Amino acid sequence: MDLGQVVHMNGGDGETSYAKNSFHQGNAVSLTKPIRDEAITSLYSKTLFKSLAIADLGCSSGPNTLFVVSDIIMVVEKLCQQLNHSSPEYKIFFNDVSGNDFNNIFKSLDNFKEKLQDEIKTKMSSCYFFGVPGSFYSRVFPNRSLHFIHSSHSLQWLSKVPEGIENNKSNIYINYTSPSNVVKAYYDQFKRDFSVFLKCRAEELVEGGCMVLTMPGRRNEDPCDIKYCCYYWELLAAVLNGMVLEVYIYKHPINEKEVFL
Amino acid sequence: MDLGQVVHMNGGDGETSYAKNSFHQGNAVSLTKPIRDEAITSLYSKTLFKSLAIADLGCSSGPNTLFVVSDIIMVVEKLCQQLNHSSPEYKIFFNDVSGNDFNNIFKSLDNFKEKLQDEIKTKMSSCYFFGVPGSFYSRVFPNRSLHFIHSSHSLQWLSKVPEGIENNKSNIYINYTSPSNVVKAYYDQFKRDFSVFLKCRAEELVEGGCMVLTMPGRRNEDPCDIKYCCYYWELLAAVLNGMVLEVYIYKHPINEKEVFL
Repeated sequence: MDLGQVVHMNGGDGETSYAKNSFHQGNAVSLTKPIRDEAITSLYSKTLFKSLAIADLGCSSGPNTLFVVSDIIMVVEKLCQQLNHSSPEYKIFFNDVSGNDFNNIFKSLDNFKEKLQDEIKTKMSSCYFFGVPGSFYSRVFPNRSLHFIHSSHSLQWLSKVPEGIENNKSNIYINYTSPSNVVKAYYDQFKRDFSVFLKCRAEELVEGGCMVLTMPGRRNEDPCDIKYCCYYWELLAAVLNGMVLEVYIYKHPINEKEVFL
Repeated sequence: MDLGQVVHMNGGDGETSYAKNSFHQGNAVSLTKPIRDEAITSLYSKTLFKSLAIADLGCSSGPNTLFVVSDIIMVVEKLCQQLNHSSPEYKIFFNDVSGNDFNNIFKSLDNFKEKLQDEIKTKMSSCYFFGVPGSFYSRVFPNRSLHFIHSSHSLQWLSKVPEGIENNKSNIYINYTSPSNVVKAYYDQFKRDFSVFLKCRAEELVEGGCMVLTMPGRRNEDPCDIKYCCYYWELLAAVLNGMVLEVYIYKHPINEKEVFL
């Protein structure tokens, strides 16, 4: 079975859904708005496209998914009004792993379109929506088919648990107790994955196309600094290890592969 | 709320799902295979496309959905092998109303691709899949973006319950007890809907593109002949009317609008 059917954001819009628990990711989307606005403005002034294909990679399902799209369309519509151009035909591609809750995105599209039309005020051009299932660590779009690629808070998810980290005992990610080979294994896996990502996107973007990527990072070189990224993995590992001790779920200490694969 | 979120095939793959209860529709898909094969063969010989965009409108969710697509790809691959051409880039668009279970289609794509690759034997070109939510009684695809449109057992679903059929008492569709204005109202609604359908598709198809539509029909002119189409609506109406009498669900006799809107 494809890993994307197992590891994905929690669907629906209930209390434990990603849609209701993605405030932090929503914050990143808000903070990066000026960068996206600048990128799409520059792209429009360079190309004056009549048809604009936008892809959100790792779109998940919830308010953040549609916020980015509405944001980009609003900027383009404003530019069109300023320049007295007719607005382009929009093609919006929502991409995520095959286990993502695309049904939930699709069900919210009618309200979204109505709200967007209200905000734009003038009659906007046609807007077509597509769900695109598949890992962005592979080709998911035809050659030269996208003008603008966006991805936020998704590229920190690797394509798989790195090889050779069996000695990372009782952890489910890098931790201050992890041996140095574990840190290197994660770093190497990220390098491989990110190279594949860039290679794929280079084939999918039209010439002169544009990409805005946001991913969490650290302010220092210590990959185990809990202040910047590893805290919740340590917390989760501690809980899982506690369950091992108390209810004997596993017969031996947990590691990444047992948790994620 | 969009009607497509309420009226759609039953999702999932459980006992009551459309996926498990679409043998009849699957039969139609099998019977029309020669027509599709001929159409795609003719299209290929005319255009020798390097990129082939196929849309299945009203695709629902289940084995029939993927059967049609696999069928078309197999024909094109065989032609390519015969003519010693490299196979085209496939873009497959699954369209249905926004309440359709697209998640279920997407989850089955990995197995589907593996099986297809096994059957084709030679290495086929890239194949990209897209879910497209929205009623086919409106524009759902960009201008001139499709080469081949397929729709089977979907166009008998009208965009809405026709106006002016309040005198069709105790029925939920045309029945032998229906007044003649009801028959005319359904006929007019179908004419309007089918015209819109054709107008939209004409804008979405590339020049020289092709369309294969299958829909249930009658062998005589009597629209109430239960042998050809109305039997299950009469049965359903009888059950609903029985429930009205027994448990007082409705305070007055049912009609279409109460059932479907």
